[in-house]
Amino acid sequence: MARLNVTQKLIESHLVSGKMQPGEEIGLVVDQTLTQDATGTLVMLEFESMRIERVRTELSAQYVDHNLLQEDFKNPDDHLFLESACRKFGVWFSPAGNGVSHPLHQERFGIPGKTLVGSDSHTPAAGALGMFATGAGGLEVALAMAGKPLHLTMPKIVGVEITGELPAWVSAKDAVLEMLRRYGVKGGVGKVFEYYGPGLDSLSAMDRHVIANMGTEMGATTTVFPSDLEVKRFLTQQDRSDDWQELLADEGADYDEHLNLHLSTLEPLIALPSSPGNVKPVHQVAGEEIYQAYIGSSANAGLRDFAVPAMMVEGRQVQPGISFDVNPTSRQLLENLASENYLSLLIHAGARLHQAGCNGCIGMGQAPATERNSLRTVPRNFPGRSGTPEDRVFLCSPETATASALTGRITDPRELDMDYPIFKEPDFLSINREMFIPPAEHSSKVALDKGPNVKTLPTFDPIPDDFCGPLLLKVGDDISTDEILPAGAEVLPLRSNIPAIADFVFHAMDPEFHERAKALEGDGFFIVAGKNYGQGSSREHAAIAPRYLGLRTVCAISYGRIHWQNLVNFGVVPLNFTNPDDLDSIDQDDELALDAIHTALQSDDEIKLHNKTKNVDYAMYHRLSKRQTEVIKSGSLINVMRSESGSG
Amino acid sequence: MARLNVTQKLIESHLVSGKMQPGEEIGLVVDQTLTQDATGTLVMLEFESMRIERVRTELSAQYVDHNLLQEDFKNPDDHLFLESACRKFGVWFSPAGNGVSHPLHQERFGIPGKTLVGSDSHTPAAGALGMFATGAGGLEVALAMAGKPLHLTMPKIVGVEITGELPAWVSAKDAVLEMLRRYGVKGGVGKVFEYYGPGLDSLSAMDRHVIANMGTEMGATTTVFPSDLEVKRFLTQQDRSDDWQELLADEGADYDEHLNLHLSTLEPLIALPSSPGNVKPVHQVAGEEIYQAYIGSSANAGLRDFAVPAMMVEGRQVQPGISFDVNPTSRQLLENLASENYLSLLIHAGARLHQAGCNGCIGMGQAPATERNSLRTVPRNFPGRSGTPEDRVFLCSPETATASALTGRITDPRELDMDYPIFKEPDFLSINREMFIPPAEHSSKVALDKGPNVKTLPTFDPIPDDFCGPLLLKVGDDISTDEILPAGAEVLPLRSNIPAIADFVFHAMDPEFHERAKALEGDGFFIVAGKNYGQGSSREHAAIAPRYLGLRTVCAISYGRIHWQNLVNFGVVPLNFTNPDDLDSIDQDDELALDAIHTALQSDDEIKLHNKTKNVDYAMYHRLSKRQTEVIKSGSLINVMRSESGSG
Repeated sequence: MARLNVTQKLIESHLVSGKMQPGEEIGLVVDQTLTQDATGTLVMLEFESMRIERVRTELSAQYVDHNLLQEDFKNPDDHLFLESACRKFGVWFSPAGNGVSHPLHQERFGIPGKTLVGSDSHTPAAGALGMFATGAGGLEVALAMAGKPLHLTMPKIVGVEITGELPAWVSAKDAVLEMLRRYGVKGGVGKVFEYYGPGLDSLSAMDRHVIANMGTEMGATTTVFPSDLEVKRFLTQQDRSDDWQELLADEGADYDEHLNLHLSTLEPLIALPSSPGNVKPVHQVAGEEIYQAYIGSSANAGLRDFAVPAMMVEGRQVQPGISFDVNPTSRQLLENLASENYLSLLIHAGARLHQAGCNGCIGMGQAPATERNSLRTVPRNFPGRSGTPEDRVFLCSPETATASALTGRITDPRELDMDYPIFKEPDFLSINREMFIPPAEHSSKVALDKGPNVKTLPTFDPIPDDFCGPLLLKVGDDISTDEILPAGAEVLPLRSNIPAIADFVFHAMDPEFHERAKALEGDGFFIVAGKNYGQGSSREHAAIAPRYLGLRTVCAISYGRIHWQNLVNFGVVPLNFTNPDDLDSIDQDDELALDAIHTALQSDDEIKLHNKTKNVDYAMYHRLSKRQTEVIKSGSLINVMRSESGSG
Repeated sequence: MARLNVTQKLIESHLVSGKMQPGEEIGLVVDQTLTQDATGTLVMLEFESMRIERVRTELSAQYVDHNLLQEDFKNPDDHLFLESACRKFGVWFSPAGNGVSHPLHQERFGIPGKTLVGSDSHTPAAGALGMFATGAGGLEVALAMAGKPLHLTMPKIVGVEITGELPAWVSAKDAVLEMLRRYGVKGGVGKVFEYYGPGLDSLSAMDRHVIANMGTEMGATTTVFPSDLEVKRFLTQQDRSDDWQELLADEGADYDEHLNLHLSTLEPLIALPSSPGNVKPVHQVAGEEIYQAYIGSSANAGLRDFAVPAMMVEGRQVQPGISFDVNPTSRQLLENLASENYLSLLIHAGARLHQAGCNGCIGMGQAPATERNSLRTVPRNFPGRSGTPEDRVFLCSPETATASALTGRITDPRELDMDYPIFKEPDFLSINREMFIPPAEHSSKVALDKGPNVKTLPTFDPIPDDFCGPLLLKVGDDISTDEILPAGAEVLPLRSNIPAIADFVFHAMDPEFHERAKALEGDGFFIVAGKNYGQGSSREHAAIAPRYLGLRTVCAISYGRIHWQNLVNFGVVPLNFTNPDDLDSIDQDDELALDAIHTALQSDDEIKLHNKTKNVDYAMYHRLSKRQTEVIKSGSLINVMRSESGSG
């Protein structure tokens, strides 16, 4: 028998295709899915389009935690749509006000030994319980809900041996900031961090959540902890001891890389603006005036992350003029903070208490003033993510944020004239599961609740075998998905409304683009681009919305990896120029044509792109797998799923 | 000696001009001012422009309670500006998170017998303590801060005798809804409602706050209660017993009108969409499904307004899918709710707890879903005010809102199978005054903190005595201030930035208007309009921003009252056509001229408007008082104040 580490055990027990060797593509059975509202509406629309009656996972859960500001009908209409989709498709629904998805999922649904795929990049947080949990694009999550395996590249497994014990005033956030200090924001790409060793005993399951959550900031595939007695204690505290099972690495199991993290020598750390990898000891920047100290988010979600600050501010006041923003993780946490008197301490000392949810962590409120320093316990400080373009956001522990709120300046908490408060996890918590809405037993007749801003996903027909159309836009190199379809306050609320969001396609480059597309007669149009077309954010809308307007084929020198995949998934043919110089001789509005394209995609032979305007041919090639040519032939991956489900 | 009612006593003790007879203009000394952040930034910019060092009131207080969403830098930059202005000008500052202005002012600063002017229409709430408190435009509040009297028309005083006692499940909100049922939304115009009688004993000071607050919805000048032993109890509970003084109507005092409100026969009432005057008994609409139940706001701000709902939901759950939004009035209230365990009850039962502030009451978050019923304890349900254009907002008591949250349908709380919870006001509360920032003692060197979106108010020079310029825009009848300068999410955040907001002047009618104005050479331009120019909202920006672009003279058939005043205050000459038919012969872009206009405004003689393009003269007249012609001559009322302060 091979001696396996925890990650290998999790993968092996779910493997349906591929080999467990770094770099190989593997397919995994998905036990659980997690969606949040900002990405979940599209996932549910995609799932609806597949015409599958109910989810085929062991458990799927949908959380409303992102779009809580509700400045008009769009957010609440989305929430109602999600609620009805959950009832219909057999998904647990966590309504607005219940709290942040990742800690809630760990508390209510996480089970050691299971796999979890979520449409949120911080899904790996569930690794704290000994799960293999990873983030993915919306359609991948919809496919997982439909019972399809998740495909990913087998990562390298980095074994991180934890030794020692956290000193006073140093907590889990400092441990993961130390990892970021060493690895930077790209050092985890293609890797899983698996923690083990004697130091684990001093890290609670929610401390591990902090570390697993922010593994994402290193670009890691996921982070894995063993399921040990601490996980048992956590599940017992959550009244779910039956869900515990032990999951430890085999004696003598090995890792692809090795690392030691000695907790005893850690000190308070802080990530300076504007990258989670820009980590320094707090004392090196101590003394700078601050505007805001912010606690909460999935990156410091535990009871202790609020209780320790509460004990720190007992009998004290935050500095006048400092915004001390407290963002409770969940309704359950709020209740326990209130009943243990922690909440009163925080409020009396000057905390500004916000609703339970993601809030300022994702730029939904609590934006700092221009160029003022904001200390936050959140996982990310990318420029402008707070909502303020000229922001100065620092990432730190609750201890450092609270110490700084008390002094008005960045403060190493060890410098406070105060004993480190002793927090002991209670054996049992007040559990709040009442607000979760379970999936309906008999759901086939449940109607989806679609407000005026929620539109059924359009159905896309396959590209005609002989296709000709105009070159509607010719663009240069490195066009990002932001340029194809922007984000921003005007566009984001339209993510559940493809017809409306399509009006913003290429909006900055060519404000009339959507009108030109809609005015076309015929079967659609081409786009021609240079290198690295569709780089950047993975948003699927950057493929769906142009396809909705009639995009059939992109001809480019090269593509961003995820956007290329998204184009295929929605039936757009991505072709590559064999000779990049050919681009020079193509002009916008040229009439282009492809003959017998479906047949051509079956082979690896050169494909001929004919320019009718110039009467010249260009040599093109494709990179589609067999399965992907089937997708193109069907019109979209959703069409493929639909015909598999027998409702096509 | 005349026998005076409380209102007359308040007015007489502050009267500096005019006679206490209904319809007469009177001037009153202003003891206190209240500003909130949405209107306060302009007030502070106006006060800055007057170049007066410190406020001349007994007390001025600035609250941040409206713009708390902070989606980008504009809100927090405004807050910092207000904080610095308070320090500089001698104003108490209540930061974001402290809570809603009106109840906070009553708790911390209200004093029986004093006058209060606020830049918020619900300022009359302070009448609960025996104050004369009224809302006014921003410049009027700035003038009051500068020590100038407030001018208003002496109102009729309606004596409302309260008898009986509130039955179970009926509370103060139902009493004021009964007033609205009788009077409608215009029935209070030009009136003060003064409450007296034996029934007062059963209404706490915060119950009276509910009634005084919503007197605004009847259009009343203000609402006045006596300062009796209940006010003493309230101030004692707030640790301010020294501020109490008795203020009762004289034995045998009379009123201009008489009314009886018998509490014992009241039943739960509800205002249907979309007017506070559309009042029915709850049982007439019981059974309709609801989406949201919302408690909080200045119209149900007391501890009992949250404690009674908490006791109602104890051991119960709100219906799944119902959004039960709890909006705590203030940090102090939150603390008391937490320490008395009410907060835990609300949260466990499913409440969605929001930050302390105005929030959804003013359309800042918590918008309901499209066409779904929302029951709210707020004072107003004008169409779309919630943020959702197709909203259905009902106004009701906390009891009715909570009963409906429990059943999922509009519910008369008397129909619940439950005893009416008994709430007893605690003798003492946990008081939170720590977060208020007092005015600095020595403030002349304090610098105003102006972020990139806060711009000093432009200085306006007087119209040249011989003025000629083009007619830049000719408009029809009933042009509202919304058409002159829109509100909305894009424009509202620019209210502290005149140069930026000016780009939106006449935006809907003529998107290039601001560019045409800026391209002009010369001294400025004319606008010609029909009847009722500048009707609607009182916003001063509709005068300031066109003036900034070069507007010098409006020639109209008639004007909206407040906009006419605002034009004069900012140095724009409002002239009236003697012969309305003259409008027909004037065309946009005609070159118009006025000769020796300053002299002409001194007399009541006809003023000649010369159309140079058509070579024809029009007879005009003005309605300016002597004092107002001085304002025109100075360029603005701020210039007048500035020269009075010796810094002009």
